[in-house]
Amino acid sequence: MNDHRLFTILDLAGTFAFAISGAVAAKQRNLDLFGIVVIAYSVACGGGIVRDLCIGAIPPAGLANWRYLMVALVAVLVTLGAYSQVQRLNQPVLLFDAVGLGLFAVSGAQKALLYGHNAEVAILLGTTTAVGGGVIRDVLLTRVPVILQREIYASAALAGAVIEVGARTLGWATDWSPWLAMAVCIGLRYLSL
Amino acid sequence: MNDHRLFTILDLAGTFAFAISGAVAAKQRNLDLFGIVVIAYSVACGGGIVRDLCIGAIPPAGLANWRYLMVALVAVLVTLGAYSQVQRLNQPVLLFDAVGLGLFAVSGAQKALLYGHNAEVAILLGTTTAVGGGVIRDVLLTRVPVILQREIYASAALAGAVIEVGARTLGWATDWSPWLAMAVCIGLRYLSL
Amino acid sequence: MNDHRLFTILDLAGTFAFAISGAVAAKQRNLDLFGIVVIAYSVACGGGIVRDLCIGAIPPAGLANWRYLMVALVAVLVTLGAYSQVQRLNQPVLLFDAVGLGLFAVSGAQKALLYGHNAEVAILLGTTTAVGGGVIRDVLLTRVPVILQREIYASAALAGAVIEVGARTLGWATDWSPWLAMAVCIGLRYLSL
Repeated sequence: MNDHRLFTILDLAGTFAFAISGAVAAKQRNLDLFGIVVIAYSVACGGGIVRDLCIGAIPPAGLANWRYLMVALVAVLVTLGAYSQVQRLNQPVLLFDAVGLGLFAVSGAQKALLYGHNAEVAILLGTTTAVGGGVIRDVLLTRVPVILQREIYASAALAGAVIEVGARTLGWATDWSPWLAMAVCIGLRYLSL
Repeated sequence: MNDHRLFTILDLAGTFAFAISGAVAAKQRNLDLFGIVVIAYSVACGGGIVRDLCIGAIPPAGLANWRYLMVALVAVLVTLGAYSQVQRLNQPVLLFDAVGLGLFAVSGAQKALLYGHNAEVAILLGTTTAVGGGVIRDVLLTRVPVILQREIYASAALAGAVIEVGARTLGWATDWSPWLAMAVCIGLRYLSL
Repeated sequence: MNDHRLFTILDLAGTFAFAISGAVAAKQRNLDLFGIVVIAYSVACGGGIVRDLCIGAIPPAGLANWRYLMVALVAVLVTLGAYSQVQRLNQPVLLFDAVGLGLFAVSGAQKALLYGHNAEVAILLGTTTAVGGGVIRDVLLTRVPVILQREIYASAALAGAVIEVGARTLGWATDWSPWLAMAVCIGLRYLSL
């Protein structure tokens, strides 16, 4: 699978995971349907839009590529349609948030490298892509951002981005290095819950 | 009237409406003059600056074109000079917010199309231009964003942007289609109060 | 000293001052090490990243130039290593915030002019660079932004940016005009405490 294709799949999967996390958080606040869609889409695409602005990818993919909006809408429908099942998951916001964190840390770093930026930009924007959605969700819902709670949140995203960027810039990249980076990020985040 | 001229007029009128909404909200919080100017300008130009960054209009018009700053300053002077009259309006923040919402949904969508972006970008950025100012106002004033309250806020902006972009991309645009789009947006928003 | 070199030194000094202000605020909230680093870096580089996006300096210096991240990390280490001494300073967050405000108002305005933008863009982005970090810090820490409190905060930054841009665009720039601009900004801010 070529890099660009892998990046797109990871990015859409992260979009789906963060959109579910956003939709659940919005539903718990008793927002109406449009409020839920707005939060889900902002959480899912906000981090990536910030990344795209910083790397000069204009217009940002989250706005220009209909797949992102569709994926966010499907995630909202799934969340609302199967709300009792989703709720039965232990802490569904945190679960999907952890998965989105790992996917976006890797896909965000990959996209910055694809656009020719240096390793530092890729690591910082991988982390930003990953934590941005959650920060936007928490700021919009006027609650203490998860990034500030005593949990390894930013550091898990950073670890994922460092592994991915390190493997690529040092020439150690293999078929499984993105998966290792994601697994470390999701694992660190999930173990800390 | 050509498109560019219409866009500029709508955008400045939206700037004026949002600046009044911001100035009233800031005055109600007993901010001093500079705090009121900062909030009024952020509310009036924040959504448009985000739109301009996303469509590659660098530097953003809200920063580079002195008319926006002047309009915001005049709105602050009007608000402070005629504060008792403005207050007598029923829910002045919400009234001017609704008008700004409709103007910016249409002008934001128009500008994205003028810059050659696709219909999805235009719809999403029209909505962003419209709701961005209010979100910034509420986040800065640390109160629950109006976008999250059980009112058709984002959906009214979306409706305005969809009508404007639909009319243009389907070739149905007429002299009155922007006015229809604005009326639908402002009407939906105002009826929901 | 040429302009570019002076700009870099002022910008790094502002980064250091804001990073200390962010680290102290984060430490007072009992955040863990990574949370402190995230807040310190966001406060130190957030305003400059917004400025760089608005002037088309892609990727933003705060992301691409390792010196900014290093300066922020050193500021965190200094803050944590000498926390009792830093605390003994009267209102250390406000002190370093005032210094960062003056440095960034001038360096932000200079960078916008270096990129060929007009005086209004330079004044507004100098002010944005200066107040942006504090707004980000306060929004992330879910407290009332300092910009809204009854203090001349935005106006001090504005005064600094106006003096710097005025001296340059009117051809009155001298070796000491940036220092005058900074002194006025820091003085106004500090006297208002």
